Amino acid sequence: MVLTERPTFSGAAKKTFQKIAIEEAISTHVFNATATLPPVNSTAELPYVDTKYVADVKDRLTNVEARVKAMDEAGVALTVVSLTMPGIEGIFDTTVAVETARKVNNEIRELYTAGPYAERFRAFGCVAMQDPKAAAAEAERCIKELGFVGILINGFSNVGSADQVQYLDEPQCAPFWAKMAELDVPLYMHPRIPSPSQMRVYKGYEFLGGSPWGFGTETATHAIRLMISGLFDKHPNLRIILGHCGEGIPFSVNRIDHRLRHFQSHHTPCKLRLQEYWEKNFYITTAGVMDDGTFFNTLKSCGEDRLMWSVDYPYEDYNEISSWFDNLDLNNNSRAKIGWENARRILKLE
Amino acid sequence: MVLTERPTFSGAAKKTFQKIAIEEAISTHVFNATATLPPVNSTAELPYVDTKYVADVKDRLTNVEARVKAMDEAGVALTVVSLTMPGIEGIFDTTVAVETARKVNNEIRELYTAGPYAERFRAFGCVAMQDPKAAAAEAERCIKELGFVGILINGFSNVGSADQVQYLDEPQCAPFWAKMAELDVPLYMHPRIPSPSQMRVYKGYEFLGGSPWGFGTETATHAIRLMISGLFDKHPNLRIILGHCGEGIPFSVNRIDHRLRHFQSHHTPCKLRLQEYWEKNFYITTAGVMDDGTFFNTLKSCGEDRLMWSVDYPYEDYNEISSWFDNLDLNNNSRAKIGWENARRILKLE
Amino acid sequence: MVLTERPTFSGAAKKTFQKIAIEEAISTHVFNATATLPPVNSTAELPYVDTKYVADVKDRLTNVEARVKAMDEAGVALTVVSLTMPGIEGIFDTTVAVETARKVNNEIRELYTAGPYAERFRAFGCVAMQDPKAAAAEAERCIKELGFVGILINGFSNVGSADQVQYLDEPQCAPFWAKMAELDVPLYMHPRIPSPSQMRVYKGYEFLGGSPWGFGTETATHAIRLMISGLFDKHPNLRIILGHCGEGIPFSVNRIDHRLRHFQSHHTPCKLRLQEYWEKNFYITTAGVMDDGTFFNTLKSCGEDRLMWSVDYPYEDYNEISSWFDNLDLNNNSRAKIGWENARRILKLE
Amino acid sequence: MVLTERPTFSGAAKKTFQKIAIEEAISTHVFNATATLPPVNSTAELPYVDTKYVADVKDRLTNVEARVKAMDEAGVALTVVSLTMPGIEGIFDTTVAVETARKVNNEIRELYTAGPYAERFRAFGCVAMQDPKAAAAEAERCIKELGFVGILINGFSNVGSADQVQYLDEPQCAPFWAKMAELDVPLYMHPRIPSPSQMRVYKGYEFLGGSPWGFGTETATHAIRLMISGLFDKHPNLRIILGHCGEGIPFSVNRIDHRLRHFQSHHTPCKLRLQEYWEKNFYITTAGVMDDGTFFNTLKSCGEDRLMWSVDYPYEDYNEISSWFDNLDLNNNSRAKIGWENARRILKLE
Repeated sequence: MVLTERPTFSGAAKKTFQKIAIEEAISTHVFNATATLPPVNSTAELPYVDTKYVADVKDRLTNVEARVKAMDEAGVALTVVSLTMPGIEGIFDTTVAVETARKVNNEIRELYTAGPYAERFRAFGCVAMQDPKAAAAEAERCIKELGFVGILINGFSNVGSADQVQYLDEPQCAPFWAKMAELDVPLYMHPRIPSPSQMRVYKGYEFLGGSPWGFGTETATHAIRLMISGLFDKHPNLRIILGHCGEGIPFSVNRIDHRLRHFQSHHTPCKLRLQEYWEKNFYITTAGVMDDGTFFNTLKSCGEDRLMWSVDYPYEDYNEISSWFDNLDLNNNSRAKIGWENARRILKLE
Repeated sequence: MVLTERPTFSGAAKKTFQKIAIEEAISTHVFNATATLPPVNSTAELPYVDTKYVADVKDRLTNVEARVKAMDEAGVALTVVSLTMPGIEGIFDTTVAVETARKVNNEIRELYTAGPYAERFRAFGCVAMQDPKAAAAEAERCIKELGFVGILINGFSNVGSADQVQYLDEPQCAPFWAKMAELDVPLYMHPRIPSPSQMRVYKGYEFLGGSPWGFGTETATHAIRLMISGLFDKHPNLRIILGHCGEGIPFSVNRIDHRLRHFQSHHTPCKLRLQEYWEKNFYITTAGVMDDGTFFNTLKSCGEDRLMWSVDYPYEDYNEISSWFDNLDLNNNSRAKIGWENARRILKLE
Repeated sequence: MVLTERPTFSGAAKKTFQKIAIEEAISTHVFNATATLPPVNSTAELPYVDTKYVADVKDRLTNVEARVKAMDEAGVALTVVSLTMPGIEGIFDTTVAVETARKVNNEIRELYTAGPYAERFRAFGCVAMQDPKAAAAEAERCIKELGFVGILINGFSNVGSADQVQYLDEPQCAPFWAKMAELDVPLYMHPRIPSPSQMRVYKGYEFLGGSPWGFGTETATHAIRLMISGLFDKHPNLRIILGHCGEGIPFSVNRIDHRLRHFQSHHTPCKLRLQEYWEKNFYITTAGVMDDGTFFNTLKSCGEDRLMWSVDYPYEDYNEISSWFDNLDLNNNSRAKIGWENARRILKLE
Repeated sequence: MVLTERPTFSGAAKKTFQKIAIEEAISTHVFNATATLPPVNSTAELPYVDTKYVADVKDRLTNVEARVKAMDEAGVALTVVSLTMPGIEGIFDTTVAVETARKVNNEIRELYTAGPYAERFRAFGCVAMQDPKAAAAEAERCIKELGFVGILINGFSNVGSADQVQYLDEPQCAPFWAKMAELDVPLYMHPRIPSPSQMRVYKGYEFLGGSPWGFGTETATHAIRLMISGLFDKHPNLRIILGHCGEGIPFSVNRIDHRLRHFQSHHTPCKLRLQEYWEKNFYITTAGVMDDGTFFNTLKSCGEDRLMWSVDYPYEDYNEISSWFDNLDLNNNSRAKIGWENARRILKLE
């Protein structure tokens, strides 16, 4: 906003101070150490990314002080942290994955939710889906012992190698979902770089796979698999959170339903239309989005009780995305709900 | 609309009669015959689809009388026909592909644009991108000799086998693009079922790959490849038409640009942001869409001079989609532009 | 929606059955009798209106059976009735007004909320603002003794003659507002035909004053007077309901605030910007509206917890407006809130 | 936009430089002199307005240098100037009005369109509707001799006194409209403070009548009178420009049409629904508006070929309103049309 100096005019930008951000990445000493081991499918994004940006992001992933300062400047009262992509899901060795998840969760508690700025942080726990029963047990420990507010999973899991990929709708994941239904806390399904076979469509432009386009379509496909699998018929109280304004699903879901009318029903185990699961089992964050059209399309698809503002710090910037949201053309009732009230209610933040 | 019988009330549905539909599939005798030959990668959709629906669609793909009758009922004045997916692009043998394209174009002219209902039809020609120079020559013949209004390509081309996939941004396609720029007619980029490697993400739910979700992400990725390749810097007058409200790009394009800020620029040969190509080189149709939110998100992304109504008959229904559009909450200036005026201008329909 | 007969297609209209309508007019024997007396400023609409429509509306204003049947057909579970315009506000004689309000409220209870279809009806009471203390007492009786869910007032009150007009922000109304704040129930501010002096702008087209344009600007002006008067600073818990998508205020309120920046502040007794009262003290219904653009502009201005669907029967038609709302492009979470959940919460309907 | 200093981030505000503003007020020596004479109904706004703001505005109404500087800063290439409210319409004496209009138009030419910054200015002429034939003659002179691009009228005209008010649909105005149809240039219908009888509804809050609310409803009523009068049936090529996003008409026009269904048709001389005249005979500017919701509701009601950006300088600020528009979430095709291309086409600006 260009300020004018004429009498009685004022072009001051608006700012709110109670915002809660819930797709916010951290790393930890334990997790950083795994990157030096062979059995990790580390992010494919880095090679394409500006080196100064990478250095800045890496520092901020572990710099609690810088994070709190940035939150203060941007009017972010509370951040729910989670282990950055690819996370535990990218560890090839199941035993290492199980052990790392446990250690990282302990570290998150120590550094954030019971650390020097404990009142400013909550956390989503990480789990090793390579061993779904162990994941269920760790999820229970995260919620009941560590006081975390949900679980975050970075898409598919590598089981043994980069090419062995497990999606969350596969039968072996059932014990994990049963536990999540019992715990009644949300699962944040965070994107990760597509699998090698998926990456082939980006040949020649591999960075596209490491961009929101590659992330989004992979993650949206994963979410649609969950809907079709009948998972939400079995556990109607399961709640999935998707970031990035729902990864494109708001734009496409009605057309998919419209088309599935003509398909043989025995191919689709689920009982309802996809739009119905979207309305009942999914919650959405705006993480990474600064586009009014995308925001309002998403809001229209899910209603204002299911949309939550977020940033995706440090990949995105608290200040830049706060400034967009605080000045978005929105009545203040809706702004408060999307900015902080929904997160408080959905994550039961006291 | 439920009609009421109270005096002076009227709930009559609105109907317009000048609509032009431009993503409308046909098949021909020649093309149907290719399906019996080994070297065709025929549509993977059919196995999942209701058999009565398939039978109805197959009949309507070649039934000119039924099409004209359906157009009359729905208020569609003019249809631009094109060869149905997978089209020439799915023929493995290059020589067969080149020959088939030529024969099919001749048939389209005979049956539609010079047939008994010639005043109701225009056509997009098909070409064999397996041989880009032959494709350029056939494109020229389509426009200059047959009087077609543009070219339609069904995504990637199989060159030799199902696994050998050629995208339109690959260097060998340059002669085709040079010819398209010279002819100054639009290329309609129609979806096709994703390639086998792409299909792996749908494992267990293969019909998803044959649904708008599978089509759309494949086609959107292809369009983004074209933007990034620098094609539109070399030929700024190239015009691409995408169906299905732009295959999800309106929802995501700003976030991709937003992210590419942080990438090393030498990976992206193109000179502009993707949104700028979207605004300059792309035209959009609503084919297959009946969702107000998707429609208005798309309209906002491109402006009302670049959006054209369409149906996707016989996969979709002229009447159903006409009824949606004729009663969409839209002023009649915009409705006329999107319904028929833009198509007349962009395709130079006399 | 035109139905198609092709296999697996279906264009069936959607319908919900739990809707609650809250701007719904009735008349009573007692009130109808006042129309034969000189001291009533009866509606100016009738002379311009189609005689068959008038006859139909008049019958329906008192025909409980026809109303319940229409509710059943349209999927309306519950109707909150109120005395039709001009109501008590149009009675010139204060004593008659006070007495009539009491009798009409008793009749409404007998015929509707304790009548043969009691489970289908709730009511807003009427009061005689010509005597604000009597109005306060009658409001209390309506809520505490008759079990009504709020009070409805038809705009300004005639005090003595057609030219003597009292607005609700005038000082003598203070006792009524104090009682409303104490009772903590909403006041529905319903339009009425503009006063004679206001009608002069419509000279030559007097029916315009009796159209939504005349009603709306008069009522919106009245609502803005309330905001500016400081009433909501004195009683922050007061809740006003406006029909007809807020009578145009959503479209204009930001520009008024924007302009008032440059005005001398001692002219505006209120402490906040108008938009802030709009967000805190106002609730909106869609009564009489069937326009998507107007609906979504209104929704954006107040958020989805403050907007309630309504009809304005019998002036409007339950079926026609239900059909519009049930098929409006809206997720079902928002549809349920606007269709019935908000009314249940705001009016504390058990 | 808060700028961040992190590497590769950039929150730079967008700015365009080709904008054209067409509801831009000036005053002249001749017109200022009339304010000292009894027979002028001068603006009622001033008494309520901040004195520093008034002084700033008064200076800027005649300060060409300051205007050009402000245009440069805000990226406004061209301004179409017009005589500020109440203008000629507020002069009680018909002879003085006719004479003043002529003199003011000459001054406007001298100071702006043929002045030292001639390439930056075009003008709407003023006319004395107190004598419609003289107005027709002066309109012709404005267009044919002075090179102005249209005529601007400030609402109703005082004929003899503050209480004698003439609307443009009255029969004596016919010769003026016949001339406008012949000249085929648009008439900008600018608001003015409501007439004394209209102002009574604002009693106690008279400044409301001098705010956009008072202006807007008065002007919208005037525009609706024109539609209903049948004027556009007689002269289908007449083009009216309304500022301020159409003075609320986009929000309400469908409901008025919806209601007029039930009225006796002999009261409405016009042949079409109001929405149809809105789409055919009206053009809209955004002058004075900085609200996304209002902007998009307006755009939806008229389509993107009829909406033109404007400021309302010096009452509003070039910079503030430019900054809003340049950063509004809009594709650049639509931004260019609304920002400058439509004005060029509609006003035939070379």
